[in-house]
This record gives sequence, C-alpha cells and structure tokens, in this order.
Amino acid sequence: MTSKFRHVALIGKYHASSAGPTGDSLRQALEDIAHLLERQGCEVVLEAETASNTGIAHYPVLTADEIGSRCDLGLVVGGDGTMLGIGRRLARFGTPLIGINQGRLGFITDIPFDAYRTTLPAMLQGEYEEDLRPLMHAKVVRDERTVYEALAMNDVVVNRGATSGMVELRVEVGGRFVANQRADGLIISSPTGSTAYSLSAGGPMLHPSIPGWVLVPIAPHTLSNRPIVLSDATEVAVEVVSGRDVSANFDMQSLASLLHGDRILVKRSEHCARFLHPEGWNYFATLRKKLRWNEGGS
Amino acid sequence: MTSKFRHVALIGKYHASSAGPTGDSLRQALEDIAHLLERQGCEVVLEAETASNTGIAHYPVLTADEIGSRCDLGLVVGGDGTMLGIGRRLARFGTPLIGINQGRLGFITDIPFDAYRTTLPAMLQGEYEEDLRPLMHAKVVRDERTVYEALAMNDVVVNRGATSGMVELRVEVGGRFVANQRADGLIISSPTGSTAYSLSAGGPMLHPSIPGWVLVPIAPHTLSNRPIVLSDATEVAVEVVSGRDVSANFDMQSLASLLHGDRILVKRSEHCARFLHPEGWNYFATLRKKLRWNEGGS
Amino acid sequence: MTSKFRHVALIGKYHASSAGPTGDSLRQALEDIAHLLERQGCEVVLEAETASNTGIAHYPVLTADEIGSRCDLGLVVGGDGTMLGIGRRLARFGTPLIGINQGRLGFITDIPFDAYRTTLPAMLQGEYEEDLRPLMHAKVVRDERTVYEALAMNDVVVNRGATSGMVELRVEVGGRFVANQRADGLIISSPTGSTAYSLSAGGPMLHPSIPGWVLVPIAPHTLSNRPIVLSDATEVAVEVVSGRDVSANFDMQSLASLLHGDRILVKRSEHCARFLHPEGWNYFATLRKKLRWNEGGS
Amino acid sequence: MTSKFRHVALIGKYHASSAGPTGDSLRQALEDIAHLLERQGCEVVLEAETASNTGIAHYPVLTADEIGSRCDLGLVVGGDGTMLGIGRRLARFGTPLIGINQGRLGFITDIPFDAYRTTLPAMLQGEYEEDLRPLMHAKVVRDERTVYEALAMNDVVVNRGATSGMVELRVEVGGRFVANQRADGLIISSPTGSTAYSLSAGGPMLHPSIPGWVLVPIAPHTLSNRPIVLSDATEVAVEVVSGRDVSANFDMQSLASLLHGDRILVKRSEHCARFLHPEGWNYFATLRKKLRWNEGGS
Repeated sequence: MTSKFRHVALIGKYHASSAGPTGDSLRQALEDIAHLLERQGCEVVLEAETASNTGIAHYPVLTADEIGSRCDLGLVVGGDGTMLGIGRRLARFGTPLIGINQGRLGFITDIPFDAYRTTLPAMLQGEYEEDLRPLMHAKVVRDERTVYEALAMNDVVVNRGATSGMVELRVEVGGRFVANQRADGLIISSPTGSTAYSLSAGGPMLHPSIPGWVLVPIAPHTLSNRPIVLSDATEVAVEVVSGRDVSANFDMQSLASLLHGDRILVKRSEHCARFLHPEGWNYFATLRKKLRWNEGGS
Repeated sequence: MTSKFRHVALIGKYHASSAGPTGDSLRQALEDIAHLLERQGCEVVLEAETASNTGIAHYPVLTADEIGSRCDLGLVVGGDGTMLGIGRRLARFGTPLIGINQGRLGFITDIPFDAYRTTLPAMLQGEYEEDLRPLMHAKVVRDERTVYEALAMNDVVVNRGATSGMVELRVEVGGRFVANQRADGLIISSPTGSTAYSLSAGGPMLHPSIPGWVLVPIAPHTLSNRPIVLSDATEVAVEVVSGRDVSANFDMQSLASLLHGDRILVKRSEHCARFLHPEGWNYFATLRKKLRWNEGGS
Repeated sequence: MTSKFRHVALIGKYHASSAGPTGDSLRQALEDIAHLLERQGCEVVLEAETASNTGIAHYPVLTADEIGSRCDLGLVVGGDGTMLGIGRRLARFGTPLIGINQGRLGFITDIPFDAYRTTLPAMLQGEYEEDLRPLMHAKVVRDERTVYEALAMNDVVVNRGATSGMVELRVEVGGRFVANQRADGLIISSPTGSTAYSLSAGGPMLHPSIPGWVLVPIAPHTLSNRPIVLSDATEVAVEVVSGRDVSANFDMQSLASLLHGDRILVKRSEHCARFLHPEGWNYFATLRKKLRWNEGGS
Repeated sequence: MTSKFRHVALIGKYHASSAGPTGDSLRQALEDIAHLLERQGCEVVLEAETASNTGIAHYPVLTADEIGSRCDLGLVVGGDGTMLGIGRRLARFGTPLIGINQGRLGFITDIPFDAYRTTLPAMLQGEYEEDLRPLMHAKVVRDERTVYEALAMNDVVVNRGATSGMVELRVEVGGRFVANQRADGLIISSPTGSTAYSLSAGGPMLHPSIPGWVLVPIAPHTLSNRPIVLSDATEVAVEVVSGRDVSANFDMQSLASLLHGDRILVKRSEHCARFLHPEGWNYFATLRKKLRWNEGGS
C-alpha cells in the first residue's frame, strides 16, 4: 500500500501557553503521525520551526518555501490559525494540506487527533475531497507607492485606534465610489473568514463556492451601513479619510500608523490554498457542529 | 433620429388608493411618454390592464405575453413592485424594461418622471446600461408531485401562521442537509431581493453580480442561525417539518396551507429580467440614495 | 420536620406528543413528589386537568382558581410554558410556584427532576429565593369598547397575516406618539419574555429587576427602528393602521382578525407571579447555561 | 419681564476645524444671546475657555467650578459633546443647562440657533421641561488601589488594542459572576448613551426614565452574548482577563495600558445632569427626527 503523496511535510503549532497542547504532547503526536506516514511509504520531512520547537531530530528539516517546492503534501497538527498561516505560505506552490486537531475541531482542521489512524491512510490513497480557498492579495498604497503587501485567507481589517473615536473610510469598488463609512472599522472577509471575525461583527456566512467578499462595518455610525457581498472579480479600495492611530490587519498581521490618504487595496490573489478533507466531508456539517445548530439550545 | 427600439409597450400601475398617483395623473403621464416615443419613431402599444385602468384608447392593446413576443422594449411607469411583476412575465422573452417613477425612486425604477424627457431619447438611441437580474424558479412538491410553480425575482419566503408558534424547516442545499431551523420563517432572497424584505430581517446586501442567494431566517430560535450566502448553481430545498398554517410566498404571490412534508424547491431560472438604465447608472449610487448613506444622520 | 407550606398543589403538563414526557412518566413523577410532600407534612391536592390527564385518583382535585384561594404553594412539573400558564392564573392570589423540569431546564423551571429529592425539603423549610415577575395587563379596544382582555407574562405581539405584506402600527407611550412602524409585527416584552421570542427578533435581555418593557419590531422596514426599552409605569398603545389579517398574541393566546383602528393597550398589572428558587439561585447562572456562554464555542 | 434665572453662564464650543461654526460665527452667536439674556434681566458671565477662544471681553469670566457654585443656569452653544462635557462638570452643583445648536440638532442640544429668540424668553420665565440624566461613576482598581476615577454621562467602554486580537473580560454584577466575554470590547451605556456608540454596536435604546445601564459587547466571539439591560442600583465590575493594549474610555476620556487583573467598576453617581427643554419637548420626537423614522425611507 503506497501513498499517492511521496514527500510529506509535518507542520506543528507549538504553544508555550498552558491553553494548547504542550510541546511534549505535540512531539509525541508528530512522531506517531510520522511513523504512520512512513508505513504508508511516505518520505517525511519536518518544517523548520516545528523541528526547533519540538526537538525532533530524525527527519530532514525544510523551510516553508522548500516544502512548497519539494513536497507533495503538508500535514498540519494544530488549529485553524496554524492552517491559515502555512496555507498562505504554500498557496503559490499549490501544495495541498491536511489538518489534524489535538483540541477542539476548527472550521478547516477537521480531523480529530483520535481519528487520524483510521482517516489518514485512505486519504493518502487518494480518497479525499479537495477544498480550494481563494486568497486575498492586499496592499497599502501611500503617495502612489506600495508600502506594504500581504496575502490574507480570512480577512483584511481597517481599524480605529484603541483610544480614539471613529475612523472615516472611503470605500470604492472597481473604481466606483460606494460610501464614506464612519465606524470602529471595516472588515473585508473571504468566505473562509466569514465564519470568524466577520460573523462576530454581524456579517453573513459565505459558502466557499461564492466568488465574493463581504464588507462588514464594525459598529457603524449610520445604521443602514449593513454588510454587503461583492464580487471578488473587482478590486476593493479603502481610503483612510480621518481618524487617529488607524491600522490595518491582514489575518492578524498588522500595519499600524496608517496616514490619512493611505489606500488599502484588496483583490483576489491568483493563488488558492488547497485543503484536503476525508471523503464525505461536508461544509454544512462543520457549520452545524461549530455553531451548535440543532442542539435544542436557545 | 430614430429609436433603436421599434415596438414599445407602455405599462402603468394604477393605484386605486390615495397613496399612489391617481388614475388621472398616470393617464396624463402615459400619454406624454407615448407622444415622446412616437416622435422618436416608435410604434406604441398599451398593456391590456393599463389600457383598461386608464381608459386610454388610441393605441393597440396587448397582453403581457403578446408584448413579450412582439415588442422590443417595455416602458414601465410605476414603482419597483410593478417592475418586478412585469419583469417576471417578460423574462422568458428577453424583452428589456425601462422604469420611470412618479413618486419616490426605487432600487430598479430609477428615472424620475421629471427627467424622462431628457433621459429617454438617449436611451432609445442605445445609450444605456444593461442590468441583468436572475430569476428564481420555485416549486412546491407534495407527495412527489409538483403542486405549485412560480418565478420570483426578489424572494421566496416560507412563513409560520400568524397566530401559531414557530415553524420548523429542514433545509438542504444540493441534496446536502444544512440544518433544521425553528423560526418565524425563512427567506431565500436573490441579489435583487436582498435590499427588500431580506434586509429588514437582518440579511446582507448582495451585489447583482453575485451568483448566489442568501438564506435569512426570520427571528430564529437558535441565535447562531445566521444568514448564509449560497451559490445559485445548487438547488435549495426547504421542507416543512412542523408548524400550523405554514405558507409560502413568491414575490408576495402566496400559497397557503402547506402540509408537513411539503418541499419548497428553489433553483436559478434559465431566464433573467433585463433592465435598462441611463448611461452612468451606478448600483452604489442607488444604495446611497435609498439607504441615506452619507447624510450625516445617526 | 414540617413544611412551611401546608397546602400544596401539584400541576403537571401532559404531552400527548412523543416530544415530552409520556403520561406514564409524568404520573410517576407526580406520585413520587406527592409522597415526598406528605412526608414533609404537606396536604397535597391535584390541579384538575393534571388529575384528568394522568388518572391519579388519591388526592383532592381543585381548579386553578380554587388552588389560588386555598393553597400555600404550587408545584409545577413541566417546562417554562407550563409555569407561565399557571403563573398567570395564580398571580392575583399571590400563590408562590416552584418549577421542576423533567427535560431540558428552562429559564424559570430550574430544578432538574433528578435533584428534587435533595432540593425540595430545604425549600419547604423556607430556604428559597423569591423571584417576583411582573405581569402585563393587555386589552384590545375597538370603537372605544374593550373587546378582549388578557394577562401576559412573556409578551404581547401584534402580527401581520401570514400571506400578507407588512402591518403598519402606530405606537404611543403614555399618550405620546412614538412612531408609525411598518414591519412583520411588534413585540412588547417583559423582562421574563426578553429571553424568549423577543431575543430571537433582536431584542436585548432585561434583568428581572428592570421596571420596564422592551418594544422590538420584527423585520422592520426602516432599519433605524431598533428595540427600545420603556418604563412599565406608562401605558403602551399600539394601533393597527393598515395590514390584512392582523392578529395579537398574549403569551401565545391569540386574537385574530384585528381591524384597522383597533388599539392594543398594555400596562403593568397590579399582580406579579411569584416563583421560588433554591437558595443560591442566580439569574446569570441560568443565562450562562441556557445561552451556552463560556463553552468555548463560536 | 424678568428671568427666573439671575446669573447665567454662556459656554460655547470653539471648533478650529472647518467642520463646525468658525470662531467668528460663535462669537457673534454668543454676543447675540448675551444681549437677549441681559434684556431679560440676567447677569451674564462667560466660561473661561469660551472667553479665551472667542476673545469676547465685556463679561466676567468664570471657570466651570465657579459657574457651578455661582450661576443659576448654563447656556451652551454647541453640540451634544459640549453638553456632555459641561454637564459632567456641573452635575455636582445641580446647575441646569440649556443647549442651543448652530448646526445639526443633537439628542440633547435641541434648540436650533434660528429659534432661540422665540424659545429662550419663555424658558427663562420658567416654562420648560426638566430632563434629569443620571451619571455613571467609574473607577479603575489595580491591586486594590483606585488608579483612575471619572464620571461619564454616555458610556464606559473597555477596548482591545487596535492591532491585537480579542480582549477577554470577566463581568460581575452586584458581586455575582455574569460571564467571561471575548470580544473587541464592552460598552456600559446609560440611557443617554444608548443612542450613541451603544446603538452602533447593536444595543437597544433606553428611555431616560429607565433606571438601568445596558451592557453591549462589541463584535463578541460568542453569538449569544447579546446586550443585557441591568439595574443601575448594582455595581458592574469588568475585569481584564487577557488581551494586549487594553484601554478604558469614559465618554471618550481614555485610560490606556490596562493590566491583566485591572477592574473597572461602574455605579450610579449620586449626581444627575439637569437639562432644560422648551415646553412640549418630547423625547420620542427627538428620536424620530434623529433616526429619520417615518420618512418613508428604506
């Protein structure tokens, strides 16, 4: 029985805090998974930070970029945040990812650690569902120069400063003026991000098949400034009109101290993240579980 | 100067109530527009109900279906409701529509009556923006037989009875179970309908370029049952699980007394409504005006 | 050890449906509780419908009104709906109520059936927390005559007909005009009702100590028609301005076919329902449990 | 005709920016109002900053505290923000305030500048409606020491840092644990503040007669963490559990860099701000105008 994927990279999230799995349990988990992969005929490598955090020494060590160019599969042990981080870095290589979760299941990392022994072998044989997630390509333009560039899988957020009043943002879509919004901030979320921060701020869920973004104002001054779903075929531009200490966040990577006149431009990246799920995987089943639908609760 | 559109039908909404324009003002409006059309080289016909309501007698009279098969353009004097009604009927013929509004501008009927003299001639010469709006094809299936079929441009709504408790609805998308929802009802809205009832119930706006529907529960029992945007390439099925006096509405056309087990199926119609707007028309400008964005209000 | 409460009435909710406890399990539960009460020195009576539904024959049978005038305590086995119903009827007598729940705990019926043996004896000795809930006194006035009168503990709701468009309601508070609202309906909710239907429609929770109602429009046409909390010292008047098949509901007791011009008047009743909870009972603990706060979910 | 108020202080908000009235127009407005006051028999004084900003020199100049102890009335020319600021400072003296607005009317400053000549004389004769607004007394306690104290008329807000993730806050009411909330922040708003930031974040309006606060989480992680209205007779405590760069705001006065374990305590101040409105003033009329109810808009 040989795996369809020859070179497989293991990526694990090490939590120094008490909240996550300890380094020891992560180390043990990764070693167990590595043995299973080897029994399936895979050649196992370790991502560099994972190797240094866990001290596992018997496997070759590669950086994320090297994994992208040399590996056929990435196997992530961690939560949605870990998947988003490595997914952004591997997107331009097209490397598929499988997510195994040691704690509470995530929206993307949907294989419980307890179940990997029964789930992984079939997936390695090619029995999986592919789930392509578009990335947002964002840049910040100041005085006609690009001063920052980033990929985001969840969302791009423009925020007021913590101790200042509202920010005023001018929104354009495909070069057309949409509105000047005064609010705590504005979220531009992908379907993947629509179940994260965007949902907390009142946005709808977008099925991953929707080729669009949702713009969700945070605590907008004008009550009719409601979430709006836009095609991802057009560029969204957000200009800082007023406000102090304005910042932008790209999947939580931050750029502080934006200036008035700065423009945050968001368009669809040419790359997608590729996630693999066990056969029978179902987006709606994940929503039901994560959002506790149909539990009879209030 | 001759019109690009040879045969033009006039459709007007007669309001018996005091709220709308009186029959007299509608009659005068239609006659004025008819004269302008004739001066542009059009042959004018009147829609049958419009003729009977206004008593205008000098033009040939056609039914909606005859207009669809014989006319090159429909010119509607009325509000969004009138446009939706005639738009549904003409969609399978592909007849384009222009909307002139005697009262408050609508989302679709965007030419104020005061301005038609300056706006219409250029549009008749071909200077316009085309705005295609997808239709929903809905049917109600009982015991594997289709008992009702309708087109809707705004929304399909499944409702509890007025004096009964919640309805329970089982939602499936593309054959996959989504959730059992207990609520006052469920709205399945197109982008066109997303600025109507769906918005009142907490749904997002969908730009007309989004190939999707939004499902919006009305007063859902489970607080995490939030609006979800789905691709219009898959069929949505809503089954009545429990509730008394459940009804379904298709753009306000109603089917009462649904039974437990009845299934409401909604998919994208193969037809679109075709609306024509003056050059420079802008979806976002309409939103700004209708939703009073940027007026400095609270 | 003798109970502080001499005459205790047992009230049980019989569910014909499979969803609730069957008559058999209810019968057994009531008989078990009756034995405990007798061992505590209580004289036990049965509410009339409870007796007829369960067939329990060894206890005197009283109507709700007779319970009110003769008993010192009502002991309810059922859910929140059962408590609301009997609470409304006993309010004018001031009879206190204890709620035992055979299924999922409610907001008011907070003693799990499994725990009554350990919980009840102390309560009967006087170790309890009293929880007074104000009642709404509502009437419908047509042509200056009162055509309907009811008490409500949760809410008074004015509703559009199921297959008709919006209802338009004119709201006045203490004789002052508030607004004309076009919506699916309007909820006037007490603190007790604020965790029920009102919450689903977007209303806030009101702590039971707040001497007020919250007015919550259901799917309002005007987006700035937001919930508003009013003092319960002033009368709220809701007049039906337009709409077909308009109805009013008082804790789910319905009055259909309201006419234009009908006025629904709501003021604070002079009576309160009296609920007793085990010592250490905590409103916020109930909210946390029922709303699944702090479970780490999304 | 002599004024009921002998000593009247003029307070004006000088805007350096182009948005507000220029110093010149404010100067002119204040001088015009001063003349009217003198004709009504008042002795006019100027608040110190107002005098220095406008350069008006013919009147005695007093600080806010001196106004509180010596004047019978404060007359504010400016917006709601100006009223809130001076109202907080004068509350402990009980000095009543009248608000005149040169721009768009506010929720509190409800006399348009154009109308003061006809409105003020009657008010000075005693024809007015008094509107008492409770103040919140807030303090920040660190290691059992009070490190900050402030009054707030609108709201107390605890916020995450701009470029950091959620803040986790432990909320207690009257010493009882309510919930641990993870969110962008938490607003504790008075009835006066309930039409300001709290409304943008999804809170209800509270009529000024409600003796309560509303707690409104901003973009809460748990969807059932909804606004809750609490009695102002109990103290609310908010403890910073986790989060970086957490800050607290008291009517926009900020305290940055809160530490984990810091507790923000909010209780009702013993003082109220006293606003005077023209006879016939109506809270609901202000809501209708500010929130554009009944304008037929969407």
